[in-house]
Amino acid sequence: MGSGGAEPGTVRPGGRTARVRAAVLRAAGDTLAERGVAHLDLADIARRADVGKTTVYRRWGTVTSLVADLLMDMAEQSLPRTETGSLLGDLKANARLVQRTLADPRQGPLFKAMIAAATCEAKTAEALHHFYDIRVKEWAPCVQQAIDRGEVPEGTDTHEVIRAVSAPLYYRLLTTGDHLDEAAADRAAEAAAAAARAGAYLRNKGLG
Amino acid sequence: MGSGGAEPGTVRPGGRTARVRAAVLRAAGDTLAERGVAHLDLADIARRADVGKTTVYRRWGTVTSLVADLLMDMAEQSLPRTETGSLLGDLKANARLVQRTLADPRQGPLFKAMIAAATCEAKTAEALHHFYDIRVKEWAPCVQQAIDRGEVPEGTDTHEVIRAVSAPLYYRLLTTGDHLDEAAADRAAEAAAAAARAGAYLRNKGLG
Repeated sequence: MGSGGAEPGTVRPGGRTARVRAAVLRAAGDTLAERGVAHLDLADIARRADVGKTTVYRRWGTVTSLVADLLMDMAEQSLPRTETGSLLGDLKANARLVQRTLADPRQGPLFKAMIAAATCEAKTAEALHHFYDIRVKEWAPCVQQAIDRGEVPEGTDTHEVIRAVSAPLYYRLLTTGDHLDEAAADRAAEAAAAAARAGAYLRNKGLG
Repeated sequence: MGSGGAEPGTVRPGGRTARVRAAVLRAAGDTLAERGVAHLDLADIARRADVGKTTVYRRWGTVTSLVADLLMDMAEQSLPRTETGSLLGDLKANARLVQRTLADPRQGPLFKAMIAAATCEAKTAEALHHFYDIRVKEWAPCVQQAIDRGEVPEGTDTHEVIRAVSAPLYYRLLTTGDHLDEAAADRAAEAAAAAARAGAYLRNKGLG
């Protein structure tokens, strides 16, 4: 296992390096969720994680790098898709996963803080885009399966259907004070499935 | 016309008070669009607006109040809806308005900054929610007209349909690096119209 310490940060997964990373990312996520990105400080996080300040500075260097690494970790940890046998069932499973995440008292504020950070930091924006890319790619096959079953038309943009499930949940989180409940998740899934069936997500469609 | 100077800020619309407000809000919007909310400073804005610092402090007091007033002004300035005679036509007109705003080199970053500010400031969040409420209420009657014409089912939540048009455009702005083009706007309108026709936005629906 591992590359025998060739580079800092590549030593034995599950070993000290992995434990330090887990502790620091946990502390960074907690701070972001509680106080937003404006208050993120490497020295504070080192203290909170009970890890040497030098280690944190050497490994991450800047708050921006740390946030990017946190997003990478969140992408790695994100749950695999479930298969239910129907497009609506699959999209509902996805919608409820997104809804539970955004309604969670730690995860919801954390995602808000990440989105806020991405609006003013190009590197964070890139890491955030990458996170959503991974999530979309994880779930897109359920739309391909629906195409193969003849549920939605050939030529449907599978990624756009997956984004359509999340979009109203994020929009509600960011632009209203309304609680994100399961009904909102189910509605998002139903709307995306209905629009997909009607051909609204056909690629290169002549929109007139 | 005016209340004869009963309160500061209520004197003659179009007079000095209105001109000062316009200059200060323009400067605040420019700063937000260029540098984000973290760099908003009342003294800087006063300088930029060529308005006395004391006037700005007396009238707005805090950056948060100034941002809330800017959102109020944006709501007042936002364009009235157009009527095209069909749900799809009306939703496309709305979608293109949102898309042009978010793709605009000043307005896009300004909206991003507002959304970011709202994630960490309750008063800004309230002002932002109010802004979107006004926008949604402005456009919701086009969905009611579609219900009256029999285009979409009775009991459709008119506000949810309008939110569904904006949601994918904001989601794309915040979570991807993709350009917001007219095709994205038209697709958002088509998806919302198709889902509405299929009954996905029925109020109090037993979602199963």
